[in-house]
Amino acid sequence: MSGWLAIAGLGPGDEALVTPEVTVALAQATDVVGYIPYVARVAPRAGLVLHPSDNRVEGERAAHALALAAAGRRVVVVSSGDPGVFAMASAVFEALEAGPADWRDLDIRVLPGITAMLAASARAGAPLGHDFCAINLSDNLKPWDLVERRLRLAVAADFAIALYNPRSKARPQGFARALELLRATCSDDRPILFARAVSTPDEALNIVPLSQAMPDMADMRTMVIIGSSQTRIIPRAGAPILYTPRFAA
Amino acid sequence: MSGWLAIAGLGPGDEALVTPEVTVALAQATDVVGYIPYVARVAPRAGLVLHPSDNRVEGERAAHALALAAAGRRVVVVSSGDPGVFAMASAVFEALEAGPADWRDLDIRVLPGITAMLAASARAGAPLGHDFCAINLSDNLKPWDLVERRLRLAVAADFAIALYNPRSKARPQGFARALELLRATCSDDRPILFARAVSTPDEALNIVPLSQAMPDMADMRTMVIIGSSQTRIIPRAGAPILYTPRFAA
Repeated sequence: MSGWLAIAGLGPGDEALVTPEVTVALAQATDVVGYIPYVARVAPRAGLVLHPSDNRVEGERAAHALALAAAGRRVVVVSSGDPGVFAMASAVFEALEAGPADWRDLDIRVLPGITAMLAASARAGAPLGHDFCAINLSDNLKPWDLVERRLRLAVAADFAIALYNPRSKARPQGFARALELLRATCSDDRPILFARAVSTPDEALNIVPLSQAMPDMADMRTMVIIGSSQTRIIPRAGAPILYTPRFAA
Repeated sequence: MSGWLAIAGLGPGDEALVTPEVTVALAQATDVVGYIPYVARVAPRAGLVLHPSDNRVEGERAAHALALAAAGRRVVVVSSGDPGVFAMASAVFEALEAGPADWRDLDIRVLPGITAMLAASARAGAPLGHDFCAINLSDNLKPWDLVERRLRLAVAADFAIALYNPRSKARPQGFARALELLRATCSDDRPILFARAVSTPDEALNIVPLSQAMPDMADMRTMVIIGSSQTRIIPRAGAPILYTPRFAA
């Protein structure tokens, strides 16, 4: 088989955050597969077939991409951010494991990208500068009890916490419950970063103490970062800097 | 002041993983400040002053960079990986907070990069494809007890765990103790990824079950990723794929 499959991260939105490795793969591709808004970021050209698909069909999309590569096509599956962080890489490997044995012989590469929490952290300062964790707040693929258990343990470990997919129209209650849990276990002044659509024209950053954090400050384009007990704010004339020191007692 | 400071991530080593944003900042800089091997990655040119410094002087290096920017220079502090993950961004903000008040008026940006755990994860498959945490195993800046407490809580939360700085000549014992802790709390077949010098000519990947993981499999250029209880291995003719599914029970 001469086909190949690259699962590529497009970063948070700004083209200046797409790695040259990904740009080269897109230039060599015959097919680009992905969620509609991510495929829309790839410039059309002669010889390139775009396969945009809707949200919540990750499994079918992954199998389609694998089948195209097995048929000899040069396929790039595009994710926003990093494909290995709550994105398409795991969906492709799930489909690979469940699929025909010869898919395992395919040339498959994962091309990393700037994931949303690192773009948000960079814009605000360095809130993830010490030990931290990343939790997907969606309970589409896991029970909500597990989300709460992980949040409690993450607070006990005093990690800074990056929350992916904090809130969507289909799941309006989860983030409100997460904030309640945090209020019961952290001090009122714990800083919370709401970073929306970082590196796009819609970018908006908001840092508030936990006592003032409200569920509707997040939507499906927002990354939420909860500081650890050590996270600090440096006030300035411009936007404040949020960071976690390297040391801990 | 016309000077500025950019704290930039050079990624894990391969130039194809350096973002265009970082490349532009380096092209505009008058001064590059950083640890010797990272500054060595920046091509010399007329008008650019390179300021390489030794390890373990992050605080002085950060203050020097801020002073240069305050004097009107265009300064890039280089980190490997992402500057906000166990790297120079927090050191710069510590120095900023402790320094002269006018440093707070400086134009300071953090330019994200591909951090080591995401490069390692991509090369092996997608072991960080579900909830995960990142722990710096160095006890230079925090007590070892805290490292162990975080490891125990991370296992209890069933996070995949990325260990930065697992082992150095100055700290040969910590990683051995971490493996003992994991053996006491995880099943023998828990997969462990040792990813050394990913994306460089020295790259070497090794996936072993916990029962076969040995302290000397890691050195200071190794990223260690411990799978969660759900992490799977897909055997192939070539290198196996290590990934964590998107769903959890």
